[in-house]
Amino acid sequence: MPELRKDPLIGRWVIIATERAKRPVDFITSHDDPLPENECPFCEGKEKDTPVEIFAVRGNGTGANGKGWSVRVIPSINPVLRIEGELNRRAKGMYDVMDGIGAHEVIVESPKHLINASDLTMEQFHAVLHTAVTRMTDLERDPRFRYALWFKNQGEVAGAGRIQHCRSQLIATPATPKRVKEELAGSRRYFEDKERCLLCDLITQEREAKLRVVFNSDHIIALCPFASRFPFELWILPKRHRCDFAAMEPEELTDLASVFTQVLGRLKAVLDDPPYNYLLHTAPFRRQRGKVGHWKTIEEDFHWHIELIPRLTRVAGFEWGTGFYINPTPPEEAAKYLREAHV
Amino acid sequence: MPELRKDPLIGRWVIIATERAKRPVDFITSHDDPLPENECPFCEGKEKDTPVEIFAVRGNGTGANGKGWSVRVIPSINPVLRIEGELNRRAKGMYDVMDGIGAHEVIVESPKHLINASDLTMEQFHAVLHTAVTRMTDLERDPRFRYALWFKNQGEVAGAGRIQHCRSQLIATPATPKRVKEELAGSRRYFEDKERCLLCDLITQEREAKLRVVFNSDHIIALCPFASRFPFELWILPKRHRCDFAAMEPEELTDLASVFTQVLGRLKAVLDDPPYNYLLHTAPFRRQRGKVGHWKTIEEDFHWHIELIPRLTRVAGFEWGTGFYINPTPPEEAAKYLREAHV
Repeated sequence: MPELRKDPLIGRWVIIATERAKRPVDFITSHDDPLPENECPFCEGKEKDTPVEIFAVRGNGTGANGKGWSVRVIPSINPVLRIEGELNRRAKGMYDVMDGIGAHEVIVESPKHLINASDLTMEQFHAVLHTAVTRMTDLERDPRFRYALWFKNQGEVAGAGRIQHCRSQLIATPATPKRVKEELAGSRRYFEDKERCLLCDLITQEREAKLRVVFNSDHIIALCPFASRFPFELWILPKRHRCDFAAMEPEELTDLASVFTQVLGRLKAVLDDPPYNYLLHTAPFRRQRGKVGHWKTIEEDFHWHIELIPRLTRVAGFEWGTGFYINPTPPEEAAKYLREAHV
Repeated sequence: MPELRKDPLIGRWVIIATERAKRPVDFITSHDDPLPENECPFCEGKEKDTPVEIFAVRGNGTGANGKGWSVRVIPSINPVLRIEGELNRRAKGMYDVMDGIGAHEVIVESPKHLINASDLTMEQFHAVLHTAVTRMTDLERDPRFRYALWFKNQGEVAGAGRIQHCRSQLIATPATPKRVKEELAGSRRYFEDKERCLLCDLITQEREAKLRVVFNSDHIIALCPFASRFPFELWILPKRHRCDFAAMEPEELTDLASVFTQVLGRLKAVLDDPPYNYLLHTAPFRRQRGKVGHWKTIEEDFHWHIELIPRLTRVAGFEWGTGFYINPTPPEEAAKYLREAHV
């Protein structure tokens, strides 16, 4: 069972793998050679090579774990957290520990052996988003989980691993992640001062300035944030205030699929198919359990968004030591390149 | 002039390069081929190829910017922050901005073309540490600076760049870094509860448990932290409580040079010369300016330490999105490998 350990200095949780722990030789000899297409377990027709599916978007008359799907969700065969068991929170001397309980699911985003999410059609992206919403809604019912992160690792440098088939992942955690807590606290502070949502204000200001906006549809906006940590960093946000990604209206979901397809196509064109990560920051699950008024506050002041970070620069000692980032491309220039891209 | 921009959501500062900004083509064609030894500007005899030295540990009778040094400090030729000017704090709409003022110095750690800090002798490491202390004490006198980070990028993956010559860096910043603030807050919380220093307690517990201790000298201890984020992560700490690295006693400095040499030699042996970063977390400069009692509290509750992170695993979407880390090697096993290494 993996172990969740809390850093006593800054309260950061770490997942320590206790089974099949890596020895020094595993790091020295490790390589990420991609698996050939004919060995890919995620292609249509290979359903028997994967664990039993949790969910799929399927055509009429097709059966679970057979052909005929467009998006398919399976448990990770190498999960960072385990689904069975209780949290078993405990102390080890001065340290806090719990069992590594959670969910780790893989969303296979196409039945075809596509490698880059930018090659998905808008309809296919819509099915992926619908799947993420469905799975998050289901995971929320498990009282052990506080949060689920939907994210994508695209390309070797971004951590995609040996299987190249286009997929995203969903990891449900028994603690609200530190990064999400920081955003909740920042949003709350702003709301308490202004009685307005920080990201609603930010969207208004960015739409007026225009400088950093990449794509602006009816319901969704994509922009390079003012304090971008990374060159060509992009945020995708709903224009209507909403804390919960899973509570999107159908017209927002359609728009999000369209903006995502546009944005990934432009990134690919401008940066020659770069590695990237994206990740969703939405409200935590258990917000109704907090102190009185807490739930209402998150609803009012937190605004879900997707952060997309191309992996073009190296994170080195200065960034690790300070939390400062050094970005060699101003977001105004990045946004201009992306707006003007031919796709 | 680079620009410091503050993320409005979580208060993180970002350094945006505004001159010679990188275009998409710079990322597509970029490569880090090492510079051949005969072109290295940091070797003895090449002093005229670098900016004028700020400080050097020199033999008697040698003159500045000539041969005869053992450690030499020069300004970075590609500084992330500029030394001249005022901070010029201002608003851009809802955003906070200041000019990118700071210091960026390179500590050349040997006159010989050594590539790995693990090849420095203990005497040479002592001179490097003495240099870091001297430069930090000097930088503290500049009222514009709040902090200076001493750090090392070793190997291409860790961000060492094209010049391979063994060196560390010192960057002084006009804001206390977020990571340091988090550690100060965590240390304070613990002290307020217990009236003891968190890291003093941690050292006591680790010395009793022995499991995670790698090296234990009279004054300095090296251990793999309980909640290690990375495989073979190491912390080096003074056993006597002290908040300020620059206030080390001579016997602590000697011991630190010895422990550092030991630790780097063991890392090299166990992991076959891995890339790594290390960085110093010491108390911020301007602590006497805080509210009443603030200075005394930092002195009492903050404990300087060095964090060393081998760069063996990739940071991917899950880590970026949550701040959780996944560590495939338990620190107990890492410490055992390092203790048992033949050096």
